[in-house]
Amino acid sequence: MTDFPIRPEAADAPTSGIVDVMEAGRGRPGLIPLWVGEGDRPTPPFIAQAAARALGDGETFYTHQRGIPELRAAIARYHERLYGGSFDAERFFVTTGGMQAAQIAIRMAAGPGDEVIIPTPAWPNFAGAAIVAGARVVDVPLSDGPTGWSLDLDRIEAAVTARTRALLINSPSNPTGWTATREDHRRLLAIARRHGLWIVADEIYGRFVYDGAGRAPSFRDVAEPEDRVLYVQTFSKNWAMTGWRIGWLEVPPELGEAQDLGQVVENLVQYSTSGVPAFLQRGAVAALDEGDEFVAEQIAIAAEGRRIICDGLLATGLVDLPRPPGAFYAYFRVRGITDTKRLALDIIDRANVGLAPGSAFGAGGATHVRLCFLRRAEDLHEAVRRLAEALPAVAGRNAA
Amino acid sequence: MTDFPIRPEAADAPTSGIVDVMEAGRGRPGLIPLWVGEGDRPTPPFIAQAAARALGDGETFYTHQRGIPELRAAIARYHERLYGGSFDAERFFVTTGGMQAAQIAIRMAAGPGDEVIIPTPAWPNFAGAAIVAGARVVDVPLSDGPTGWSLDLDRIEAAVTARTRALLINSPSNPTGWTATREDHRRLLAIARRHGLWIVADEIYGRFVYDGAGRAPSFRDVAEPEDRVLYVQTFSKNWAMTGWRIGWLEVPPELGEAQDLGQVVENLVQYSTSGVPAFLQRGAVAALDEGDEFVAEQIAIAAEGRRIICDGLLATGLVDLPRPPGAFYAYFRVRGITDTKRLALDIIDRANVGLAPGSAFGAGGATHVRLCFLRRAEDLHEAVRRLAEALPAVAGRNAA
Repeated sequence: MTDFPIRPEAADAPTSGIVDVMEAGRGRPGLIPLWVGEGDRPTPPFIAQAAARALGDGETFYTHQRGIPELRAAIARYHERLYGGSFDAERFFVTTGGMQAAQIAIRMAAGPGDEVIIPTPAWPNFAGAAIVAGARVVDVPLSDGPTGWSLDLDRIEAAVTARTRALLINSPSNPTGWTATREDHRRLLAIARRHGLWIVADEIYGRFVYDGAGRAPSFRDVAEPEDRVLYVQTFSKNWAMTGWRIGWLEVPPELGEAQDLGQVVENLVQYSTSGVPAFLQRGAVAALDEGDEFVAEQIAIAAEGRRIICDGLLATGLVDLPRPPGAFYAYFRVRGITDTKRLALDIIDRANVGLAPGSAFGAGGATHVRLCFLRRAEDLHEAVRRLAEALPAVAGRNAA
Repeated sequence: MTDFPIRPEAADAPTSGIVDVMEAGRGRPGLIPLWVGEGDRPTPPFIAQAAARALGDGETFYTHQRGIPELRAAIARYHERLYGGSFDAERFFVTTGGMQAAQIAIRMAAGPGDEVIIPTPAWPNFAGAAIVAGARVVDVPLSDGPTGWSLDLDRIEAAVTARTRALLINSPSNPTGWTATREDHRRLLAIARRHGLWIVADEIYGRFVYDGAGRAPSFRDVAEPEDRVLYVQTFSKNWAMTGWRIGWLEVPPELGEAQDLGQVVENLVQYSTSGVPAFLQRGAVAALDEGDEFVAEQIAIAAEGRRIICDGLLATGLVDLPRPPGAFYAYFRVRGITDTKRLALDIIDRANVGLAPGSAFGAGGATHVRLCFLRRAEDLHEAVRRLAEALPAVAGRNAA
């Protein structure tokens, strides 16, 4: 075998701890896969057909690096419906999933010698993108109490150094469900202003809240036009388009003086993916313009899933699980168990249910496992039944 | 307006000089667009339908970060048909266009403090990706003689410093058509071996050669399994899929000891785009398995286009244009003219033909313009007619 010289930014990118476990369970008949952040419904036909039509019509050439104008306008209209006020389409950049939006935002804000702060447990890909950009990731663990997860904002500010460039804030949070209040947003923004930091705001679960408010609080509720907030968004969750790889990046209303933020984003798209297929973007326009009813169904499925899973797991008496206020994950501890990768593998073997080990999500949550409840009730009832049966043995074995 | 702090790697990425000119000509009725590297045929139905079918069948979920196994196997078979020998599917990684393949290859090889060497004139996105990675780009100009472009390999080796990490070699070349010989490949590989460099090999125009050989020489013809060659490839050109954003990265047969190259590539995909839509990959499988006849048509169109454009422009007596041995561009000088951005804008105004200014392609070719001749003969005849009419005035005005 041969030794190849790989740059540390590339070599140091961690392997996803979720994929590890998925490989162990891939292809098992009857397995109920609750490890990934996606539902069980394919993309609805009205979206798929819009894309297929454009494909058949020959929209197969190079296209706008910032996204087709029709989609950018549809995104602006969507924001106006959801948040009120008016949004300039020029602020929105179509990206290859929310992932590329995050990657570009982080690339703009931080690089070698810089630090970014991430409240954890967190979606591991934020940290992965920061490491690939050459930045150092500083985890600030949320607190895990009987009533749920909370973020101590003094700990965030205490973690800021002269090298800090950005706060990566995901609310509602994957995996914990933690949802920042309006006051949290105000205080986080104040910290960012005081220290000249970017905020990279991942609010992709913003529609999945269970208090009847319709949407989660957002940095938009408190930010000024000149605030340094970059929003990353995706079509994946609301419209069941995880496999499409389309999202968007939203930059501040003021596009910058010394440097035009829009041109910077366009260049970063140009030199990484060179845009998103136009025919896929036609599907995304349909999602936004005709998809409100479908999104409402998704949210209803998640609300029912949350009830089934929380009620069912709590009834076993073996888990610690505060009901998550947002997102669509149960992030729970099986009492007495600390090695959650082994736990996830055991649960595949004994319950044929796929969960994601907490070790994948950074500091503060390694003793938990994550379960995605955006799925038909029938499967979730069956998953609860199997877990309730398997957990006593699994817990006993692992605690031994 | 507001000032935003942007990382230099992101801020320094140059704006595409081609897009600038395209913006000036966008929407002009009757314009013949020969500025971009794509033909005028949409993706053929057998490919589009395979993707639409998979989309309709609900292949809309997250998928393999390395590409679906069926596509990786089809890519391996394609290589076996084209190059002979056997290829392990594990060496191939499906990417968001050739661009992402290049971006990942560069990210693996070079970063801040490093240098990469690019023979120029060159496709500007190689340099763009290197700058975003934080590396310094060292241009080594090709020589432009009456019989065509040539690369002085001693100049390449003279440009190597202790900081050099990679040679980015595009053959056949966009924009010049320069095509490395087997001996060039052998010598470039020797330089890379002597100095411990990566070679990033962009051979995406490898099918577009006009000497009857069927394919251009490749690093594959001379490389050993342990050589540090990363090949970037795309579905864009051969199969008229520019707008699909699908390509692949090929890593050495030996996948590495200290670090598994395959895992590094997977991680870099994970933290930038998180994979390519599975339903699009079904179209790509059809392209490879059923597309040989279509590729032959593409090559025939390019050969005929090359004849029309070269004969037509040379007949004006106003241009310097060696017939390109490979790729599908005429890269020519209008005698007496040096400001090619102005030339391109004038040609839009007076001839309604879109060309790309040479200033976009780095050192050594700033006084040229690029014309893509992968297009129906009728349009190319008309473009020649218009250019022959406009060039005397344009040349006179710009030389004045």
